[in-house]
Amino acid sequence: EKTYEVLRKCNLALVVVDIHIGITEFETEFIKQLKRRRIPCICVINKSDRDISEDLKTISTDDIPAVHVSAVTGFGIEKLKNVIVENSNFEDVEPALVSDLICPGDLLVLVTPIDKSAPKGRLILPQQQTIRDIIEKDAIALVTKEQKLKHVLGGLKIPPAMVITDSQAFKKVASDTPTEIPMTSFSILFARQKGDLAEMVRGIQQIKRLASGDKVLIVEGCTHQCQADDIGKVKIPGWIRGIAGDDIQFDFVSGAHFMEDLSEYALIVHCGGCMLNRREMLYRVEKAREQGVYITNYGVLIAYVMGILKRAIKPFPEASAVLEESNKNNEKEE
Amino acid sequence: EKTYEVLRKCNLALVVVDIHIGITEFETEFIKQLKRRRIPCICVINKSDRDISEDLKTISTDDIPAVHVSAVTGFGIEKLKNVIVENSNFEDVEPALVSDLICPGDLLVLVTPIDKSAPKGRLILPQQQTIRDIIEKDAIALVTKEQKLKHVLGGLKIPPAMVITDSQAFKKVASDTPTEIPMTSFSILFARQKGDLAEMVRGIQQIKRLASGDKVLIVEGCTHQCQADDIGKVKIPGWIRGIAGDDIQFDFVSGAHFMEDLSEYALIVHCGGCMLNRREMLYRVEKAREQGVYITNYGVLIAYVMGILKRAIKPFPEASAVLEESNKNNEKEE
Repeated sequence: EKTYEVLRKCNLALVVVDIHIGITEFETEFIKQLKRRRIPCICVINKSDRDISEDLKTISTDDIPAVHVSAVTGFGIEKLKNVIVENSNFEDVEPALVSDLICPGDLLVLVTPIDKSAPKGRLILPQQQTIRDIIEKDAIALVTKEQKLKHVLGGLKIPPAMVITDSQAFKKVASDTPTEIPMTSFSILFARQKGDLAEMVRGIQQIKRLASGDKVLIVEGCTHQCQADDIGKVKIPGWIRGIAGDDIQFDFVSGAHFMEDLSEYALIVHCGGCMLNRREMLYRVEKAREQGVYITNYGVLIAYVMGILKRAIKPFPEASAVLEESNKNNEKEE
Repeated sequence: EKTYEVLRKCNLALVVVDIHIGITEFETEFIKQLKRRRIPCICVINKSDRDISEDLKTISTDDIPAVHVSAVTGFGIEKLKNVIVENSNFEDVEPALVSDLICPGDLLVLVTPIDKSAPKGRLILPQQQTIRDIIEKDAIALVTKEQKLKHVLGGLKIPPAMVITDSQAFKKVASDTPTEIPMTSFSILFARQKGDLAEMVRGIQQIKRLASGDKVLIVEGCTHQCQADDIGKVKIPGWIRGIAGDDIQFDFVSGAHFMEDLSEYALIVHCGGCMLNRREMLYRVEKAREQGVYITNYGVLIAYVMGILKRAIKPFPEASAVLEESNKNNEKEE
């Protein structure tokens, strides 16, 4: 099962076979699993020394590329390297973070509070990646703490194309940013890039329907050191209880592991997934959907709690449509 | 010798002693070396199980804190952890990158070309650290590629407090930044933080004095993948030959290693050292100074080659004084 977990992060699998043993049922099943997950695969037929008898050379690998190598003599290794390069699929197209929404020359304002969990002297990954995405588009990134946002906006001749904030500062940033300036959060950008923003917006509607005794699963993709006011462990349960009542139950899971059986949960709240890849996030969303469990994420939840979800997803028509639809349904219900 | 190399990056040393053997000449010499380098040190007396005889417990460690532990039973480990925390000196005060030169609310423009050597989707460490240093000071960092700098400067109501550029774009940035706006480079900021900017400015003067057959050592602190137009391997030798003649010889060294004997070199050109710590950089500068070898770095050299060293070090009075002094001396010689 651990192996299948690793597969979710895998861009290419090498299935190593001993030429003297050939492909057994184990490899056949394994290759089937790879195909189901659309992971490209190369069969590496090891111990193919030069003096191997001809009949051993006819291992059938169906439609999978196969390379004869010898780990001992080094035979075939150069060829294997080439086949890896030809078959690997690292460019798995991730949707852009923000560059598809902006034009060259646009100015974007990034609001990045510095808290104890930020790595000393550096920027956290989502901030870095957003800045890079902006400047690669020949646009301009302006980075500020939340306290200086007003000052920053006042110092610009032309208003910025967008303000992107850390969710921590959502409330202050929303009130300091004139409503005509688009505003969203890093975690909403990442929800869109890594997974399925519309599904996360659908998921958040479940909060209002949570009932006494319901269980909520909080998921973090990495195993960071918990802070005293940890967002996943403390703040989110607090907010959910504030909305849905004190007797909501919480389970927590973090790291590479994600449960097979999610059916006992009424809602899953996932972190932004900055340490997970898109394949893994989509797998998790799909897993929840299969089992009829609503899933949302930290950024969407925080925007919802702050009462600014509508504004924060306005730049994303698909997600906005989901929100509008469910607001209509709610009205009908009421 | 490898051990002594590692010491240069070391904030705390644990000297582990077997209680049955005690402190031998080896440990005594080692502790002496630690003291010479001002590295705090703890003597860990292992195999101190509970039933050890009283006379073994009197190992003398002079003025060095000593902790009795047993790796087998776990005895003393908690105490050791506390002693480590008390004695470690990770907060070794590095001078600021730029925050000591600016005020809260200041706007700084950072020019960051994106080339093939930048890590995919991220920012290189010097850029990250500079942004962080700026926002921690409650100042504002505006990040742009070099092509948009003019556009950026035109869009500001108040000119920025400083423009900081990657050395690659020095020439364009110098010409696009009005002379009344202070301008420097990431590598000059790092030369100041990591080592000794004034010494690097003193070192660059040596370029004009290089004579036929002189040897120059190019040093990189990390072992990055070389690009076709690699700065250390290709560009810097080209520039130096352009100034000092085609028959200047070059040696290259990279990574953690730094030679003991530098005496055959007429000049050392060091990288910015973003992967080295200040202790290590100062050790290298001192090593060169001891042997009467001039040392400079990439950023100072590039600024010099582009004819903008004077402008780029203007924010740093000590380094500017060195440059002025050597210019005066040159005039006298001429």
